[in-house]
Amino acid sequence: MDHYEELKNICEGRITAAPAELCCYAADGSQIKGKPDYVVFPKTTDEVSQVLAYANKHLIPVTTRGAGTGLAGGAVPVRGGILLDMSQMNQILSIDINDIQVTVEPGLVADKLNETLKPYGFFFPPDPGSAATCTIGGQISSNASGMRCVKYGTTKNYVLDLEVVLADGTVIHTGTNCLKSSIGYDLSRLYVGSEGTLGVITKAVLKISPLPKFRKLIMISFPSPENAGLSVSRVFAAGVVPSACEILDKTSVSILTKLDPDVIFPRDGDVVLFEVDGSSKNAVDESAELLASACEEISSSILITDDPVKMKEIWDARRLLGAAVSKLDPTKTRIYVGEDLGVPIQKLPQMIAKVYEITNEIGITPMIYGHVGDGTVHVGLFIDVLDKDEWKKLDIAADRLHLAAIELGGTISSEHGIGAARGMYMEKQCGSAFGVMKAIKKTLDPNGILNPGKLGLS
Amino acid sequence: MDHYEELKNICEGRITAAPAELCCYAADGSQIKGKPDYVVFPKTTDEVSQVLAYANKHLIPVTTRGAGTGLAGGAVPVRGGILLDMSQMNQILSIDINDIQVTVEPGLVADKLNETLKPYGFFFPPDPGSAATCTIGGQISSNASGMRCVKYGTTKNYVLDLEVVLADGTVIHTGTNCLKSSIGYDLSRLYVGSEGTLGVITKAVLKISPLPKFRKLIMISFPSPENAGLSVSRVFAAGVVPSACEILDKTSVSILTKLDPDVIFPRDGDVVLFEVDGSSKNAVDESAELLASACEEISSSILITDDPVKMKEIWDARRLLGAAVSKLDPTKTRIYVGEDLGVPIQKLPQMIAKVYEITNEIGITPMIYGHVGDGTVHVGLFIDVLDKDEWKKLDIAADRLHLAAIELGGTISSEHGIGAARGMYMEKQCGSAFGVMKAIKKTLDPNGILNPGKLGLS
Repeated sequence: MDHYEELKNICEGRITAAPAELCCYAADGSQIKGKPDYVVFPKTTDEVSQVLAYANKHLIPVTTRGAGTGLAGGAVPVRGGILLDMSQMNQILSIDINDIQVTVEPGLVADKLNETLKPYGFFFPPDPGSAATCTIGGQISSNASGMRCVKYGTTKNYVLDLEVVLADGTVIHTGTNCLKSSIGYDLSRLYVGSEGTLGVITKAVLKISPLPKFRKLIMISFPSPENAGLSVSRVFAAGVVPSACEILDKTSVSILTKLDPDVIFPRDGDVVLFEVDGSSKNAVDESAELLASACEEISSSILITDDPVKMKEIWDARRLLGAAVSKLDPTKTRIYVGEDLGVPIQKLPQMIAKVYEITNEIGITPMIYGHVGDGTVHVGLFIDVLDKDEWKKLDIAADRLHLAAIELGGTISSEHGIGAARGMYMEKQCGSAFGVMKAIKKTLDPNGILNPGKLGLS
Repeated sequence: MDHYEELKNICEGRITAAPAELCCYAADGSQIKGKPDYVVFPKTTDEVSQVLAYANKHLIPVTTRGAGTGLAGGAVPVRGGILLDMSQMNQILSIDINDIQVTVEPGLVADKLNETLKPYGFFFPPDPGSAATCTIGGQISSNASGMRCVKYGTTKNYVLDLEVVLADGTVIHTGTNCLKSSIGYDLSRLYVGSEGTLGVITKAVLKISPLPKFRKLIMISFPSPENAGLSVSRVFAAGVVPSACEILDKTSVSILTKLDPDVIFPRDGDVVLFEVDGSSKNAVDESAELLASACEEISSSILITDDPVKMKEIWDARRLLGAAVSKLDPTKTRIYVGEDLGVPIQKLPQMIAKVYEITNEIGITPMIYGHVGDGTVHVGLFIDVLDKDEWKKLDIAADRLHLAAIELGGTISSEHGIGAARGMYMEKQCGSAFGVMKAIKKTLDPNGILNPGKLGLS
């Protein structure tokens, strides 16, 4: 059987097995590598269904890829086989403002959806850092979130229905177009975050939200990262639900000031950027005041602004952070390992202290930032990639960071997912629940063709 | 083997098989009946685990019951066996305001949780009509919602972690205490709404929300139920997310006026009660104005009030509605069948028209109310329960209503669940996805002991 020819027929010629092209599909934003044998470019649900039925029959691994912006190797075909590049299924199929929903194909780029929704006064809230390039299918498969999710919730809160192709090619709908429905097992939520291991998403009905009309930014500096962590609890206890809540430790701030010496950031400590939003200017003003007073006692300085130019400058700087780390030391590169810890909010000061303790012992400089309103602690570890010893240190640091998060009652991944990068911690993280995940995987993908080597499942 | 004695040993004497007592467990708020053989009252997770391991070995059905307020027979032991009465596991185990969460046992009464949280300025938003008596475990098992969910979301949005006992007695944790976590399959969401068919919940970690400080009620009457339905889309399109959005058709209003001739309800049409809430008085005022103007063109009258006495009176009247229906005709009783339809918002006018058409043809008077902001259409059908012909009519009406909802792209249950009452529509509603549900059930409960006869699964 010539798999290439068969797959080529199914996808009407949209296939490649050229070595140079396959290399483009061998990586994502993580350190995980793995080359596919074929890349196919389906255009319809029926084509996806035929590809899966064929792969299932011939036991060929199938990995689904959106834009490849993942940070855990979720879309990397570590066992070879077929890579489904979903980028040609990228249409907005309908915008139903009166039903507060849209129907889209999985290859649609996230920002494109929000640009299209803006004139209607609506938006799709989950906003991962990669929104400019990542796809909606990838967002769903990894339950992506981002800065706004502290107020608006993660991707799973917005998925009403998914069209999914199962391992054997069967097409199902996981939900309905209703905003609320209570009809047995919530299969939509099971597929959100399942990283392509249970089926291939070919269509999604998503709830949308009215765009807030007013926003205000409150930038607060604290004398210690512990105080910065504490501020989050205080703000919530004051009854304010901020629309963003980002921590940047002293190292992160110093990177930004190296990038732009005039950047509007306080130089006197660890910084938390809060944002409040709403449909009323007065409400936003009041929330900002309430938030500032909740933090006053434990902070060094407070800046409140609704100047759009200043706000843009501050948020642009924050968004640059992940990439800008090289400014700290041009000989070093940031590597995404141990980068996505999460803890209950009260444990933030402890987690932050632990990151400094571990990296200090090992001799790596960390940068800490993240969505602290959700308990997310992004750790940036950077090394000289030509130095083998530094790679070893990095692995040890990442391992200890993951274990420290679990020990604090936290999570090895707050929002980036497990992929092939964190599978080895699943048993420790999930305990006997991991057995339930394995059983579900075995039931829905008995031949193990769907994204093998991920989630620690195989 | 004497099951009674074995179970008695496990639960340290907390068991009954007295016929009169068993009868008390043979029903819920629906028409479904079924008597257990034993009722046990576990006090610990370990006892639940031992009961399940025993039942699994001896193939005895196990049905879990909170307060028995369900409306679809979910907690009714239709195949006999063991009934787990969870009411003695009813403690609030911890209140962690700084982590924005609580840990509770499943037998805790919902309102009790909110009374306890009130002094802290927080609340657990999902608010089914039965909140005064229903339990948190029941809320989770049925993904309960209610009036506020249009803004705050349903129970599933608030479950961070569940301790669950599986069919064989294994205890798992489905999540973490983190506000955000991305670690493989979302088992918490799989268990929410699974109606006791996949395991028994013994503990829950729930996210809570800051209590809004201000509320305002906007009562709007419309010349037709279609216009009332339309108002919802208009309000959302205006950028307002109301904290409640309840429709009461002309019949519902007439029932309330019969109950209390002075009740503050307009007599000139179908009514929608909107509420807006927030942490700022100005914001709430502005939202109320915006909402009112969005509806002005299509409405007959608008009343805006933040007078707490008036608001209480109006909401109390709304809450009485389900029970007060007998006032329309004292010889008739409301029966909960076909009562929980849902459709995409734009289809509300069509669904409402369809309810009138079907009930008119069959000769039953309907009352329509519900959370229209979510597309929920509660239909009250009432009959003379001594008249066999009326029962037949009722069954025909319910059947046609369910099918009509499916045809409109809607759902047979918006929030009450499937239980034993709606299982026969699952295949039609879910299509091939129902096969996935069956496969998951078979995997996690191979002997079929967990709440058999529910969700159409067995």
